[in-house]
Amino acid sequence: MRPKNPSASRTVMTDMVLPSETNPLNNLFGGELLARMDRAASIAARRHSRRITVTASVNHVAFNRSVPLGSVVTVEAAVSRAFKTSMEIYIDVWMEDRFTGEKTKANEAIYTFVAVDDTGIPTEVPSLEPVTEQEKERFDAALRRKQLSLVLAGKMKPNEATELRALFMD
Amino acid sequence: MRPKNPSASRTVMTDMVLPSETNPLNNLFGGELLARMDRAASIAARRHSRRITVTASVNHVAFNRSVPLGSVVTVEAAVSRAFKTSMEIYIDVWMEDRFTGEKTKANEAIYTFVAVDDTGIPTEVPSLEPVTEQEKERFDAALRRKQLSLVLAGKMKPNEATELRALFMD
Amino acid sequence: MRPKNPSASRTVMTDMVLPSETNPLNNLFGGELLARMDRAASIAARRHSRRITVTASVNHVAFNRSVPLGSVVTVEAAVSRAFKTSMEIYIDVWMEDRFTGEKTKANEAIYTFVAVDDTGIPTEVPSLEPVTEQEKERFDAALRRKQLSLVLAGKMKPNEATELRALFMD
Amino acid sequence: MRPKNPSASRTVMTDMVLPSETNPLNNLFGGELLARMDRAASIAARRHSRRITVTASVNHVAFNRSVPLGSVVTVEAAVSRAFKTSMEIYIDVWMEDRFTGEKTKANEAIYTFVAVDDTGIPTEVPSLEPVTEQEKERFDAALRRKQLSLVLAGKMKPNEATELRALFMD
Amino acid sequence: MRPKNPSASRTVMTDMVLPSETNPLNNLFGGELLARMDRAASIAARRHSRRITVTASVNHVAFNRSVPLGSVVTVEAAVSRAFKTSMEIYIDVWMEDRFTGEKTKANEAIYTFVAVDDTGIPTEVPSLEPVTEQEKERFDAALRRKQLSLVLAGKMKPNEATELRALFMD
Amino acid sequence: MRPKNPSASRTVMTDMVLPSETNPLNNLFGGELLARMDRAASIAARRHSRRITVTASVNHVAFNRSVPLGSVVTVEAAVSRAFKTSMEIYIDVWMEDRFTGEKTKANEAIYTFVAVDDTGIPTEVPSLEPVTEQEKERFDAALRRKQLSLVLAGKMKPNEATELRALFMD
Repeated sequence: MRPKNPSASRTVMTDMVLPSETNPLNNLFGGELLARMDRAASIAARRHSRRITVTASVNHVAFNRSVPLGSVVTVEAAVSRAFKTSMEIYIDVWMEDRFTGEKTKANEAIYTFVAVDDTGIPTEVPSLEPVTEQEKERFDAALRRKQLSLVLAGKMKPNEATELRALFMD
Repeated sequence: MRPKNPSASRTVMTDMVLPSETNPLNNLFGGELLARMDRAASIAARRHSRRITVTASVNHVAFNRSVPLGSVVTVEAAVSRAFKTSMEIYIDVWMEDRFTGEKTKANEAIYTFVAVDDTGIPTEVPSLEPVTEQEKERFDAALRRKQLSLVLAGKMKPNEATELRALFMD
Repeated sequence: MRPKNPSASRTVMTDMVLPSETNPLNNLFGGELLARMDRAASIAARRHSRRITVTASVNHVAFNRSVPLGSVVTVEAAVSRAFKTSMEIYIDVWMEDRFTGEKTKANEAIYTFVAVDDTGIPTEVPSLEPVTEQEKERFDAALRRKQLSLVLAGKMKPNEATELRALFMD
Repeated sequence: MRPKNPSASRTVMTDMVLPSETNPLNNLFGGELLARMDRAASIAARRHSRRITVTASVNHVAFNRSVPLGSVVTVEAAVSRAFKTSMEIYIDVWMEDRFTGEKTKANEAIYTFVAVDDTGIPTEVPSLEPVTEQEKERFDAALRRKQLSLVLAGKMKPNEATELRALFMD
Repeated sequence: MRPKNPSASRTVMTDMVLPSETNPLNNLFGGELLARMDRAASIAARRHSRRITVTASVNHVAFNRSVPLGSVVTVEAAVSRAFKTSMEIYIDVWMEDRFTGEKTKANEAIYTFVAVDDTGIPTEVPSLEPVTEQEKERFDAALRRKQLSLVLAGKMKPNEATELRALFMD
Repeated sequence: MRPKNPSASRTVMTDMVLPSETNPLNNLFGGELLARMDRAASIAARRHSRRITVTASVNHVAFNRSVPLGSVVTVEAAVSRAFKTSMEIYIDVWMEDRFTGEKTKANEAIYTFVAVDDTGIPTEVPSLEPVTEQEKERFDAALRRKQLSLVLAGKMKPNEATELRALFMD
């Protein structure tokens, strides 16, 4: 399988915040945004792997900014690193003021998807070749995040997580 | 404010997996489950704080088991630790085979909510007093998770995250 | 088939009232609540019978209390009596004030479900053994309700509905 | 207020059965049909009263025929009797075979709505003057049903329910 | 195949405008109305042809009147002309003031549907015989609209569109 | 107001075709696609005008290709010409095969939106300056389409529609 660039999987999903998706403060429900990000990330994972893809995990997602009713929300997802059968997807969420058009970063999230065949068995995916500076940074950090996941899940001993360990020993 | 027990916020949301919520493998979409967990966790946070609550972050969520169409899914959420204005909510997801009734753990997730007033300003919440062994374990681990969040967000230096650091230096 | 207790089928569905489910007075639509109760009752019927279950009838449902937008609504359903292939499900609906947390009974409803096989043919279900006082009362009343249904549907002569007749001749 | 005929409130709601509204047997969910009937009945009640109307109760509804995915369903609702502030709505549900076009009666239901002002206080409605034979029969039966509701709710003594009592003493 | 009258396909879909279907001015979204009209027109096409029917095109639709939240909207669709395998559906949309009950025309639209077999291949439909004056006018105009579609799609030369050409040369 | 380029309003909405959006042939419902296009076009109109925008009309839309369940659909909308208070939006719809990733044009559509103030009164919008060849062609054709709309609506005499008339007299 030939490696692919992040641009091959980049997925842009722009949509409005509708009244049925808001909480009592008239802001977008966290759960709604999580579902939109999952759909966009799922498309990015499929574009990279050309396989059926299923959500494997959601890494830390911070909801830094509330997104008011009537905003235009753009979810932008792209594969940030591919492992054997799994892909890390980096998601940037932008919101746009209805009247001024000012675009601000609403939040970032990282999801992991696994490519599977028709029976649900994990199957190999192409590797990723980052191109821009930001893509390279995200590619490198993905390895630390994977180690952290493995440690937290008890599948890797902390002292084997070389990159991660360095972080705490500085 | 008087401290509360986890049982005061425990929220049980049992529902079916409908055809409109499934992916091409006929399993529940990750995004749908994320949205259900957000609603259950939001109710638990409100029951603890009696305030408007908004999603602040989603910690690592692993989708270990796929949940087939027609399953009965039970999302059970309770506050696992309260900080000044935020609450960590621990969520257990069970699925039940349609015919045998066998219940299996589908996954666990941890969300953080913030209590706010009508204008969106964070406001204090009661502390949590864990009662059972499991509640006490989750209470203790919540502090490590908070440190990890702060470190990952660049808001705490790794060497100040005492509890977390110990984990990697053993 | 071994008899079951009501607790084996008890189903708790807690969820919020969202803006898309409200009428012009900002209260939960009757139709929405009917649909939620149907889903909860269907799960209770399945838990008792471990079969596919379909709604057979809805008995008298009174909407005594309106449920405002933003309330937390708990629908609690359990089998109250099992007949040959059908089950009566008793549903209690509670609502919880967003801020005080005060829980009040919003309404009660009774649905009947039939267990069917894959081709839709009715199939036998276990009998029910009530345990608590309330479960016993509901068990007894279920027979009167069944007679009433049969009389109203013209499938039983009023003078054969012994239990029911007594009610009107006292 | 001038009396109105049932035709003044007759409401026809024709729509398809979509995949998202079906149970594991690929038939329309009972709860979905209950919600559609509630919307149609609510429009009929509003057309009769020209007021905000809220669901007060659902009388016995029998689901005699299952409605397969892809069917065209017609819900037809009209006021069958008006009391002081409440209206009984009689609902006929027809389904239409996708290919032959054959129309069959799927079920009947009876809902009661109350007219209210902007603050939710019940308010008077015009009386109903039935015209056709069927409308007259339904008008007469409505009184028996109201007595039955009151008896079942413990708001009328069985021996005062003159019309109803006659039914059981023949 | 025997010709049919427009009344054989007339489809009436009455429903409310719910909060989840409105734009920031609290009026029904154009897109929501387009989807409702598509469903009603699809049923009319099926009633005429007794086949699976798929949307082929939407002709000019003007949204002359905005439809406020809480209005009752009636979409009325009927086949206005049948061609070999396609049908033109004429749709009238009425809205009804919540309190006065005054009915006003909200807009008109014209959709074209094609009848297909199980594999998606177009299949013949009965011809249409208009009866009323309005049905005859719409039947005649349908031919001009078809010519216009063909010309705009580059499938007919303007000078062959006899009826249409006359319009511009007067 | 400074003129804007089409790129200032270009809106990309990528999403999947879910089971709840499909017809009996397992293809995307026409009505669903019409609603998605309306939302994308509405965002494009808002980005050009920075005003509340409401759908004014839908021009001829041809559904040339059916879009199967599970496809990824990209709706791309941009303002193609601005008039005094209205904007023509040109919409291209692409679909992407789930496995090969092959992108094909599914259809094109043209919607017209009007910019309004808070009370719904039409308000002026910036003019459009096309840049690419395709943008220039669409800009020119927009005038012919506007004349055609006016003629069909009886608001312009055919012989005044200079550009359009030329088409039929060649």
